[in-house]
Formats: sequence, structure tokens, C-alpha cells
Amino acid sequence: MIKKQKEGTLIVLSGPSGVGKSTVISQLLSNREDLYFSISFTTRQPRVGEENGVNYNFVDRDEFERMIAAGELLEYAEYVSNYYGTSLKVINDKLAAGIDVLLDIEVQGAAKVKSLCPDAVLIFIIPPSFEELSRRLHGRNTDSEETIAGRLQKAREEYKEIPRYDYLVVNDRVDNAAAEITSILTAESCRVKRRIHLTEGV
Amino acid sequence: MIKKQKEGTLIVLSGPSGVGKSTVISQLLSNREDLYFSISFTTRQPRVGEENGVNYNFVDRDEFERMIAAGELLEYAEYVSNYYGTSLKVINDKLAAGIDVLLDIEVQGAAKVKSLCPDAVLIFIIPPSFEELSRRLHGRNTDSEETIAGRLQKAREEYKEIPRYDYLVVNDRVDNAAAEITSILTAESCRVKRRIHLTEGV
Repeated sequence: MIKKQKEGTLIVLSGPSGVGKSTVISQLLSNREDLYFSISFTTRQPRVGEENGVNYNFVDRDEFERMIAAGELLEYAEYVSNYYGTSLKVINDKLAAGIDVLLDIEVQGAAKVKSLCPDAVLIFIIPPSFEELSRRLHGRNTDSEETIAGRLQKAREEYKEIPRYDYLVVNDRVDNAAAEITSILTAESCRVKRRIHLTEGV
Repeated sequence: MIKKQKEGTLIVLSGPSGVGKSTVISQLLSNREDLYFSISFTTRQPRVGEENGVNYNFVDRDEFERMIAAGELLEYAEYVSNYYGTSLKVINDKLAAGIDVLLDIEVQGAAKVKSLCPDAVLIFIIPPSFEELSRRLHGRNTDSEETIAGRLQKAREEYKEIPRYDYLVVNDRVDNAAAEITSILTAESCRVKRRIHLTEGV
């Protein structure tokens, strides 16, 4: 029996600003070291502690617009006045090599990815409550009141897109949320469409 | 915010005779003690070590046919000349109380359940190979060569129904298979359709 090489799975994580996605992703990547985390390109300013090439590839608006024009992006979107986008080639190479790829992108980008790649797995992360989200945004001490109000309003709009997602994870505790996402990835690898080759040749 | 009580999830496990489903189920039930395992009714003879009310509810053909006529069964099927069926009322009560229910049923019954309950999660368990399945059936020392040949032929037919299932799990080692099914149940509880109530009232 010849087993076809299996393609990797594309996993999209979204969630409102302040939900703690980066921390959940760090934990997830330590649970699943074989997972490739695609680093997005962005025109926003690095926050304290963020590094170019680690958290994001930070580029200026001119460079980002050049990438758009050259067709180098799988998806891109403007979010709170900054561009965010995902490199196409890197992802395709990893998937073809059978590696699961994780993307951290917002709702517009996620919808675009799902339309281009219907097998992508879309996961939305929410905080335990909106009050908690507000508390976390204030606790970060990086944004003005006005920016925070904008982020909360944006979060309300994003919640309306949750029905487009496959899974909903509550970030009550980072280890719980990362464990649930790890289970989702295991389950997705067990889907009949991804394993049917195991039944060939019987 | 008032959270609606969530209904339990109906999980169907199928797999060829000899794949080791009962052992996987025992392990799964110790991983997930909140899971309710629905004991099927059958007209087949108990095997050595099997107990009435534990492995199956063993009944005779007349009683089984009375249950069919009285509409007491969610599904039933004839398999290797014996009836197997699932009680409707017990399952509905558990699901309504928010308890996940596990059914061990063959492919005809699984298709019936999926048509009656589209949200049911269907999992098919296969052995690492057909040679291994044959070895396990012989090792059981309970069936004649003829019965084993019949079971292997039946298994080949069952494999054709795998595309109707949601997930495919390989029982290479019992603990691996049970862990994968546990992850599937966790992932299914995270599906947006089962958690969308968490986003209400925002």
C-alpha cells in the first residue's frame, strides 16, 4: 500500500486585541513543536518587547503596498489604521511539506483565507467576558483611552463574525486555552478527509 | 448574561469486529468519567467474560422484535445474523441533561443516527492493517475460521462507509486511540455551534 504524503493543515487564530493571543500561541507552540507559526507582516509600530522577525515582520507602508502590488500576500487587511498581511510562498511550501501552519490574523483576513483554502481550520479566541477584555487592555498600559475604546468597539464588530469560524476557545487561563487548541489540532488531523488514504489498498 | 444550558453531544463509535473497540471504550470512559456509555441491546450470545447490563443488554429475538414494534429503539440493525439496537429514551434524557452520550454501533446504525441527529459525531476505528485485524480475530479464540472469514469480508464492506464518518482513528495502541478520541470530544465541545451562546449579550 502506497500512502500519499499528507498535506499540512492551515490553522487560523483570531481574537480581539487584548485577549492574550500571543501568550496562548507561545504555549501552543511549546505543546506542538512541529507546528510552524507564520509571522505576519505589519505596518504598525512594535510594542515594548516586540521584536522584528519574531512577533511580526515590521515594514513601512511603502514596502507593504509594494508587496500587495507584487501579489506576494495570501491575505492582507487594514486594522486600526495599520496593514497586516501573510506571505503566500512560505505557507505553501510548508503545507506541501506536510507541516501544519498557524496564522494569527484578524477576521477579514480569516474570511479571505477560508475562501481560498476551504480546508483551513478557523479558531476564534474570546476573553471570559467583555469586562475582563477591558481590564486586560487597560492593564497593558500601552494604549490611550481613546485607542482602548476603539479596540473594544472593534471587538464587538469582530464577535459578529464568529459564526464563520469552526471553533470558539475561551481564554480564561492560558494553559486551558492552549490545551483546547492542541486538542482541536489533534482532532482535525483525525478527520476522515485527512486520513482516508489509510484505508486504501484494503 | 443568561447562558442557555447546553445539550449533550451524541458520539457514535464504529469499527470492524476484532479492532479492539471495547478496550478503547474502557480507556476512553476512564479518561472522561462524565461520558455516558449507552449499552446496546443485542440478540447475540454473550462471549466469555461478557455480562448482561454491562457489555450489552442480552435479549432474545422475540423481545427484540417487540421493542422494534413498540418504537423503543433509536436505531437497530442486523449484523452477522444478530440484532443490535439502541434505546431511544435513555439517550434523549441524557442529552437533554447536557451529558455527552457514547454509542457503539455498526455502520448501518451509525448512518441512521446521523440522519436523525445531524449533530452526532461519527468516529470509525480501524486496525493498523488488515493482517493485524485477522491476527486479532484469530487470537481471540472465540470464532470458527468460517466466522472469522465472514467478519473480515464484513470489515471490507464497512470500510466503504468510512467517508460517511467525521473522524478516523487507528487503534495501533489502546492509549493512543483513546487519547485521540478524547481530543476529538474536546474539540467537538469547542465547535462554534456548541458555544455560540457564550458570545451573547455582548
